[in-house]
Amino acid sequence: SDRENFIHLCNPHLEKMEEDILYHFALGTGTHDLPALFGDVKFVCVGGSPSRMKAFITYIADELGLGSPGSEHPNICAGTDRYAMYKVGPVLSVSHGMGIPSISIMLHELIKLLHHAKCSNVTIIRIGTSGGIGLEPGSVVITRQSVDATFKPQFEQVILGKTVIRSTDLDEQLAKELMQCSKEINEFNTVIGNTMCTLDFYEGQGRLDGAICLYTEEEKLQYLREAFDSGVRNIEMESSVFAAICNLSGVKAAVVCVTLLNRLKGDQISSSHDVLVEYQQRPQKLVGYFIKKHLGKV
Amino acid sequence: SDRENFIHLCNPHLEKMEEDILYHFALGTGTHDLPALFGDVKFVCVGGSPSRMKAFITYIADELGLGSPGSEHPNICAGTDRYAMYKVGPVLSVSHGMGIPSISIMLHELIKLLHHAKCSNVTIIRIGTSGGIGLEPGSVVITRQSVDATFKPQFEQVILGKTVIRSTDLDEQLAKELMQCSKEINEFNTVIGNTMCTLDFYEGQGRLDGAICLYTEEEKLQYLREAFDSGVRNIEMESSVFAAICNLSGVKAAVVCVTLLNRLKGDQISSSHDVLVEYQQRPQKLVGYFIKKHLGKV
Repeated sequence: SDRENFIHLCNPHLEKMEEDILYHFALGTGTHDLPALFGDVKFVCVGGSPSRMKAFITYIADELGLGSPGSEHPNICAGTDRYAMYKVGPVLSVSHGMGIPSISIMLHELIKLLHHAKCSNVTIIRIGTSGGIGLEPGSVVITRQSVDATFKPQFEQVILGKTVIRSTDLDEQLAKELMQCSKEINEFNTVIGNTMCTLDFYEGQGRLDGAICLYTEEEKLQYLREAFDSGVRNIEMESSVFAAICNLSGVKAAVVCVTLLNRLKGDQISSSHDVLVEYQQRPQKLVGYFIKKHLGKV
Repeated sequence: SDRENFIHLCNPHLEKMEEDILYHFALGTGTHDLPALFGDVKFVCVGGSPSRMKAFITYIADELGLGSPGSEHPNICAGTDRYAMYKVGPVLSVSHGMGIPSISIMLHELIKLLHHAKCSNVTIIRIGTSGGIGLEPGSVVITRQSVDATFKPQFEQVILGKTVIRSTDLDEQLAKELMQCSKEINEFNTVIGNTMCTLDFYEGQGRLDGAICLYTEEEKLQYLREAFDSGVRNIEMESSVFAAICNLSGVKAAVVCVTLLNRLKGDQISSSHDVLVEYQQRPQKLVGYFIKKHLGKV
């Protein structure tokens, strides 16, 4: 079949290390047989909340017919409370917390883990929540481009005190495949659009309901309308560094987020618990279907 | 005694809201009696790890002689897994995850919570872990100034697409009081120094052991030596926005972090689990002693 694509490590120093401690996973090459534990991983799904990523592994185990029903999936990172990690067959599910720095730590260690485990042909998909712009709440956005708070498709980072700019391109073919899956499921509204990635949830996303807000409602709405006009359909806090790191590591990546509210109509997430739980299952369903299809189980 | 200092909310929009949902705490003014639950809070301790903040509340309850020994302290934010929150008497203990965006969300909702609860004369202290520069591992740093990756004492943030710069000053008197407490305890090395706050743990802190590293060891060491020469004694990922938000909200704030390693000698956190656990108790001991002293229990 396909040529094998291994993980690309952009770090010549790692070869010289005798042991690599993946500190925030409480795993390491000196203490764990990473190829035996993770060598068969083909799909990695990541999301902010540890309990959501646990729910996802239970869901995908049922969908793939792996593991006995009702069986518990142990947290592979039980030695730490920074991240949670679950595995069933070729699927790994990992939490990343909230925000660029939190997902960045996780991705550095995940990419190294997949490399040490000699994984090949891996696809990584972020399944998350977001604020929508001009969409009905509950709509799912597959990210075309991740853009920054000035709507540019780039990730700016400071390295050794100097600003470095990286591309936030995502795999176009993968986004189209996911869109096709959503059409086949036909259960909820899905669009391909740009995703704005911010460093803050309140002022950084133009909310009026944080502890600090020094702008008017009109200024907020003007900003969100400009975002919409530039192609932005949702706002979240992790996609830019996710795209940048996956790009540099040669891993196919996609971002699939449900919108919990329409930011043109408000700031507070006030839907009932049950409605929000159902919304959060939509990216899981979509990506679950995609994985089943790839494994010939649809 | 002192004049009562209430929380200052820099947001005129909040007055007009009938209800305020603190989404990431799973609390709200419409569902919880915040003055009854939190009105007596005087000390808020925040830290990245939820289990560490649970351990802290157990420790402080014992130290203050509040609650029966061995009793469980319930997680007030049990309705979500974004943050964990514990309370005993006048002390609130809250986790904030890793990185500026994660602690920023928590602080916006914490400041609003303390305001809604009509709290007064509140002190907020971050007790965390960090990488040291030129210090023996296990040393505790009380932050004089939080500086960015170019060693400037400021926090840069993008609001409605425009860059805004905020002060990261911390309470000088409070830092001195904490230093005095450490002298009285006399159990571990403590210094007052600048703390560098970065948006990334690997490349952003000059590490050689991430999935991506495009600089040499010599370039790394030059950067860390420049940081040391400018007064930086440790590096972490939350202090700048913590100082900025506490400043604007008129709350006394301090940052007390233990150093897990000396970054001039390496990048990996390779001390044994037991040693790291003991290190992490040092900021808790120091701040616990400070609280006891303020409550006249030393």
